[in-house]
Amino acid sequence: MLAGHQIIAGRGEPGSGPVFRAVNPADAATLAPDYASATPTQVDAACNAARDAFPNFGNTAPDQRASLLEAVAAEIEAVGEALIERAMDETGLPEARLQGERGRTTGQLRMFAELLRQGDAFKPVVDAALPDRQPAPRPHLVRLNRPLGPVAVFGAANFPLAFSVAGGDSASALAAGCPLVVKAHPGHPGTSEIVGRAIARAVEACGLPGGVFSLLFDDGHAVGGALVQHPAIKAVGFTGSRRGGLALSALATARPEPIPFHAEMGSINPVFFLPAALSARPQGHAEAVAASMQMGAGQFCTQPGLLVAIEGSALDAFAASLAATVEQAVCQTMLTPGIFQAYQQAVERRSSTPGVMLLARAGAPGQPNRCRPCLFAVDAGTFLADASLAEEIFGASSLLVRCRDADQMRDVARSLEGQLTATLQLENADESLARDLMPVLEGVAGRVLCNGYPTGVEVCAAMMHGGPYPATTDGRTTSVGTAAMQRWLRPVCYQGLPDFLRPEAEG
Amino acid sequence: MLAGHQIIAGRGEPGSGPVFRAVNPADAATLAPDYASATPTQVDAACNAARDAFPNFGNTAPDQRASLLEAVAAEIEAVGEALIERAMDETGLPEARLQGERGRTTGQLRMFAELLRQGDAFKPVVDAALPDRQPAPRPHLVRLNRPLGPVAVFGAANFPLAFSVAGGDSASALAAGCPLVVKAHPGHPGTSEIVGRAIARAVEACGLPGGVFSLLFDDGHAVGGALVQHPAIKAVGFTGSRRGGLALSALATARPEPIPFHAEMGSINPVFFLPAALSARPQGHAEAVAASMQMGAGQFCTQPGLLVAIEGSALDAFAASLAATVEQAVCQTMLTPGIFQAYQQAVERRSSTPGVMLLARAGAPGQPNRCRPCLFAVDAGTFLADASLAEEIFGASSLLVRCRDADQMRDVARSLEGQLTATLQLENADESLARDLMPVLEGVAGRVLCNGYPTGVEVCAAMMHGGPYPATTDGRTTSVGTAAMQRWLRPVCYQGLPDFLRPEAEG
Repeated sequence: MLAGHQIIAGRGEPGSGPVFRAVNPADAATLAPDYASATPTQVDAACNAARDAFPNFGNTAPDQRASLLEAVAAEIEAVGEALIERAMDETGLPEARLQGERGRTTGQLRMFAELLRQGDAFKPVVDAALPDRQPAPRPHLVRLNRPLGPVAVFGAANFPLAFSVAGGDSASALAAGCPLVVKAHPGHPGTSEIVGRAIARAVEACGLPGGVFSLLFDDGHAVGGALVQHPAIKAVGFTGSRRGGLALSALATARPEPIPFHAEMGSINPVFFLPAALSARPQGHAEAVAASMQMGAGQFCTQPGLLVAIEGSALDAFAASLAATVEQAVCQTMLTPGIFQAYQQAVERRSSTPGVMLLARAGAPGQPNRCRPCLFAVDAGTFLADASLAEEIFGASSLLVRCRDADQMRDVARSLEGQLTATLQLENADESLARDLMPVLEGVAGRVLCNGYPTGVEVCAAMMHGGPYPATTDGRTTSVGTAAMQRWLRPVCYQGLPDFLRPEAEG
Repeated sequence: MLAGHQIIAGRGEPGSGPVFRAVNPADAATLAPDYASATPTQVDAACNAARDAFPNFGNTAPDQRASLLEAVAAEIEAVGEALIERAMDETGLPEARLQGERGRTTGQLRMFAELLRQGDAFKPVVDAALPDRQPAPRPHLVRLNRPLGPVAVFGAANFPLAFSVAGGDSASALAAGCPLVVKAHPGHPGTSEIVGRAIARAVEACGLPGGVFSLLFDDGHAVGGALVQHPAIKAVGFTGSRRGGLALSALATARPEPIPFHAEMGSINPVFFLPAALSARPQGHAEAVAASMQMGAGQFCTQPGLLVAIEGSALDAFAASLAATVEQAVCQTMLTPGIFQAYQQAVERRSSTPGVMLLARAGAPGQPNRCRPCLFAVDAGTFLADASLAEEIFGASSLLVRCRDADQMRDVARSLEGQLTATLQLENADESLARDLMPVLEGVAGRVLCNGYPTGVEVCAAMMHGGPYPATTDGRTTSVGTAAMQRWLRPVCYQGLPDFLRPEAEG
């Protein structure tokens, strides 16, 4: 059923670049078919088709794009279990998780459709003409949001549906009126192909130009680099590693015409356990944090990778309980052999970092590519002196930072670089310290939460999934929730237009 | 009365860097007092004071900041004619223009005050808790706009009040809750000092920390470079040349923590004369375009530098009439000797560019630093083949591009890089060609206008004064109008906060 072909402007086309296959991380077996990487000519064809589709697609009515998004959701659902099965094979993620993620993906598509049908997002800002104003009349002025142009989206490894081919970046870009060229993540090419074909069918069924959607494969860097540098591409959405994000961001900035590059590059999502909260229920917190850190083998950009608490018997009880839970943790399959190896190496490095103690690690499972959750501890002085301890380990792993006192906890907060999230566990008695930490945390994180855990990102209007650099390349934007569409829009002011030229959106 | 001192956190402090003086461009005489450039220590002190003021100022209620903006406007007005006189001496601009610009400046400050008092700009986006939702409850989520932190603003040469120390960048940053460090333009240091002291008085009168405002002087690049690279600075606003903007933008991007850099770098503001419109009144168009191109000696970023029309008798009549008007133009004093020299050189270069004809130039005035407005013409084929002809000449100068036919006019439109504005002169009979050009122009310009001229930027909600690169570094933002405040804000999502931690803005 899978062809292993690129989708160029809606049509399947075999690649002729280097060939790769997906690997089932659960048993390390390769999965047919072969995917041949896109050629430079194919990258060019996809981008030019997107450019040519833009005058049409960028001027569709919001309702038309809502219909497209709904059609994409319906086409994805119509594929049925074949999508879930292939995604399970390619990612090692369990069936229930992938079913939930499919629901989130189609839910996001329909959320943007609803946003478009409501009409607020493209509501014009009008300053009416004042023909009699002195000393000079004011002309009729209307500001409207217009799509930026063709957008390149990079599928992420860790959400093969919700942050991949038809994920939040794609849904929000289509909602904005931007044709899409997606670079499939090489970890799940089959899943990408299935979803890509569903999008292409929806584009065709809606009578839109094929250039609205293309999908390119590559397990190296050539296609991604060419895409970001292609003159037809006007903005990029990326979710992945800091190294990858920064490399592509540098290409976007160095173009003759630099373009907006939105990269979400991960986070260590600090959780601060304030004294009264920790004393009240050290075991309850240990269970909750263990559940959050292991979710999806810890392969969430919101995984709580840093736990900060003040020395004392409550911290000792919390650490002992958390260590015991981690020791017993189930070792889940990681997304790809590459991600597993990087995780292993990062854990080894941290284990051998001076001053860091490995408190707990789940037992060796005897199957390939299994994440063995681990818990490290370090005193705050060591943490503050070694920047490598603030680096993300992608996979189930947390570092417990033991602070001497509240002052040192404040120092740890102030030392943090940009984060997607920051969390406070607190009781009423913690109010004073919480008030001290709040301005620091809201300065450093895109989302500040209390008495919850950062995994589990709501898809809604109030969500901010983004954060100051280096959590993202642009901390003023979100990649989750309705506000994500703003990334692909620019305002244009129309002054004194005759009726026959006024944009339809002005109504 | 003028001290020639930096203002560091509200207090005057002599600099000890290289010394410079303002020059009266009308007679080339230097103007007392000396301004000694800020030292690196002073740059550091100003930035650190802004950082220290941020927790307080960033958490003021919008009403408090409205009061500050109103106080700044009142302090500027209270200075009276001393401000206008010094600005006239430093810039060569006439009294009426500077009085108008002062009105625009105080009007902008009050516009942002009104925006803050209305409250919409900081209105929270709320997704209420759904405690009974299955399979998991939804926590209370609130998204609020928060200020980015201390902002550096570079005063522009060409609007010594409205785009300078208390101009649109400063007003919008203060409105957002960002402390300011302003680098004065060396062309009008006295004007900058007068306005800077007015701001410092307003800050003090409002009981705000002195670090909310600092003003630094330098006629070289050291202070500006240090400012953009200072870790306390979280965003930058700049209006000036492309070379200056790109050099500072590169510094902002290369920081360990890259920051948003908003540069408005000029534009050639193409005006397309469609056939029916040109035939209807070639002389009327000639008079109108001449008035617009000479306004302020052409030293407007919206100066119409490119005129595009189709060959024929109407174009010949238009060109003859425009040439006659330009020949008779008054030669106004330019802002600085440096700007005059750059203008002269650019005009010389264009005069000797193969295929370009100098149609008209106003007579030599016999006084220093006077702009001699000039009109060039070129055929579209030559224009399309020589990218230098699309470069801005800062000062009164326009290039008339003669197209063979409508197709070639479309080619000229498609060849344009990002612009602040694009204009169509049209009649109903021009509808078809106008419809062809419209998508090209709205793709290339931040503001598209019909049957008007781009000079005269309304300060209002619908304004978009910005445009795709290289008109600005970020075509998704405006530096004029209420939307300019958005540049200095980032959203933060607050999830599940107890009442005692909820931000006051949530109300």
